Amino acid sequence: MHDVGDLLDVLDLRRIGASVFEGRNGALDLPRVFGGQLAAQALVAAARTVPAPLVPQSLHATFLRPGRSGLANRFEVTHVRDGRSRTTRAVDLLQDGKAVLRLTAAFGTPAAGVAHQTPAPEAGRPGDAPTLDESIADVGGLTGLWSGFSAVEIRVAPCADGPPSRGLLWMRAAGPLPADPLVHAAVLCYATDLTLLSAALVPHGLRLGRERDHDHAWDTVSLDHALWLHHIPRADEWLLFDQHSPVASHGRSLATAHVYDRTGELCATVTQEGLLVATPLA
Amino acid sequence: MHDVGDLLDVLDLRRIGASVFEGRNGALDLPRVFGGQLAAQALVAAARTVPAPLVPQSLHATFLRPGRSGLANRFEVTHVRDGRSRTTRAVDLLQDGKAVLRLTAAFGTPAAGVAHQTPAPEAGRPGDAPTLDESIADVGGLTGLWSGFSAVEIRVAPCADGPPSRGLLWMRAAGPLPADPLVHAAVLCYATDLTLLSAALVPHGLRLGRERDHDHAWDTVSLDHALWLHHIPRADEWLLFDQHSPVASHGRSLATAHVYDRTGELCATVTQEGLLVATPLA
Repeated sequence: MHDVGDLLDVLDLRRIGASVFEGRNGALDLPRVFGGQLAAQALVAAARTVPAPLVPQSLHATFLRPGRSGLANRFEVTHVRDGRSRTTRAVDLLQDGKAVLRLTAAFGTPAAGVAHQTPAPEAGRPGDAPTLDESIADVGGLTGLWSGFSAVEIRVAPCADGPPSRGLLWMRAAGPLPADPLVHAAVLCYATDLTLLSAALVPHGLRLGRERDHDHAWDTVSLDHALWLHHIPRADEWLLFDQHSPVASHGRSLATAHVYDRTGELCATVTQEGLLVATPLA
Repeated sequence: MHDVGDLLDVLDLRRIGASVFEGRNGALDLPRVFGGQLAAQALVAAARTVPAPLVPQSLHATFLRPGRSGLANRFEVTHVRDGRSRTTRAVDLLQDGKAVLRLTAAFGTPAAGVAHQTPAPEAGRPGDAPTLDESIADVGGLTGLWSGFSAVEIRVAPCADGPPSRGLLWMRAAGPLPADPLVHAAVLCYATDLTLLSAALVPHGLRLGRERDHDHAWDTVSLDHALWLHHIPRADEWLLFDQHSPVASHGRSLATAHVYDRTGELCATVTQEGLLVATPLA
């Protein structure tokens, strides 16, 4: 069962060298390891080599090979730069000596400056919104892809306007998290990979949580993952994801989301490129 | 004079090893080398190690130190992965042995798949739009930052709606380019760094091309640069940039643009995080 306890344990990497860490995979029965988990673990590995009070400000991850759930994950951290106001780390994730993911992460501290933001959209209250499963009960409920993801609660907010791919989702860790901001950043990173690429399927008649039409099962494969943490919110309180896919063409699709905390502050932006893969149903 | 000829020469890196290249800086009198030039050169270095017919599909660059115009740029390419459908390279840009920029680029070929996109906005015709200088003649014309950038023509299209930071810009290389798609990808990469971060200044009373209020000169400093090339357009034909800044907070700002070709196809998306730096005027 992949619940919050399992996720926290997965994020608690074991140090096996000055800049080398090892981690296991979550108890999810998927054909390949969930990319959001691997990116979150790589972020933790990078952060473990960065002194307080620096916190993650952004990450750029490139997925190189499918992760295999039976193998251990080895994270090798490179100290790219220790600057005055910003520190940068690169992480290579290896399984059995083969590169699975490469991540660059930047760390710093909040500073003063001008401020503006896109206002948070109207999305009602999370307590009034149906769960992902309830929201698609009329088309048969969740497909297999979604059945194990119980570490993060997802609720589907009403969305009246915007492009066809747009979705508003409430998400939070399905239980309390320890105070360490790194844990909240890592859980947010994990959550930003859950529903994002599915936005690209919505204009083509599919529903988030039910990526199946009458003759195909659709799957999404992450190619990369860019996350900007404007500030680190609590990931065990409701966060509003405003996601859409601006483009799919030539075999690839892009999706992006802004993430708002309960006060309406835009706390994170995520963009991801992926493949949409259709497998004929037997 | 930094014109198209100079830019093409700057992009024509000298191979000094199997995976090592050297390049000079453009004839621009700036306090630090223009980041878009360095990212474009790093993309060229990566591409020179990738076999045809693979073309660039995305890049993620992290700026580590200001580039110094008097120093040579050394690009060291790492072969991260040669996959069946996607090939990945990392590039470290060094000046005098110190890391200035780190880039990851992915290469592939177009494939079949579902397609959708945000429609191109109404932006009139580029021939009817004023140049950047003409568009701000009423507030004193260009500030120093802009005076040397004549390798790319910029025209300011009318923009009636959207968030306060939104701007519509026509851009093209200021002269014909050779047919090689890599040159067009690199010039587009260069162009995506020109005006993007300035979008974050617009909600604070400043104008693109005139980043100066009554008591401060404003400068933008790129922290990173993510570019997704959905397909590679001709960069010597007019491209429409639809840019805005969704957020500035805690000392950093984010800006993003969609780039459309003359047929209205969404051909690229770029997102960049940066610093907005105000220097008191004497």
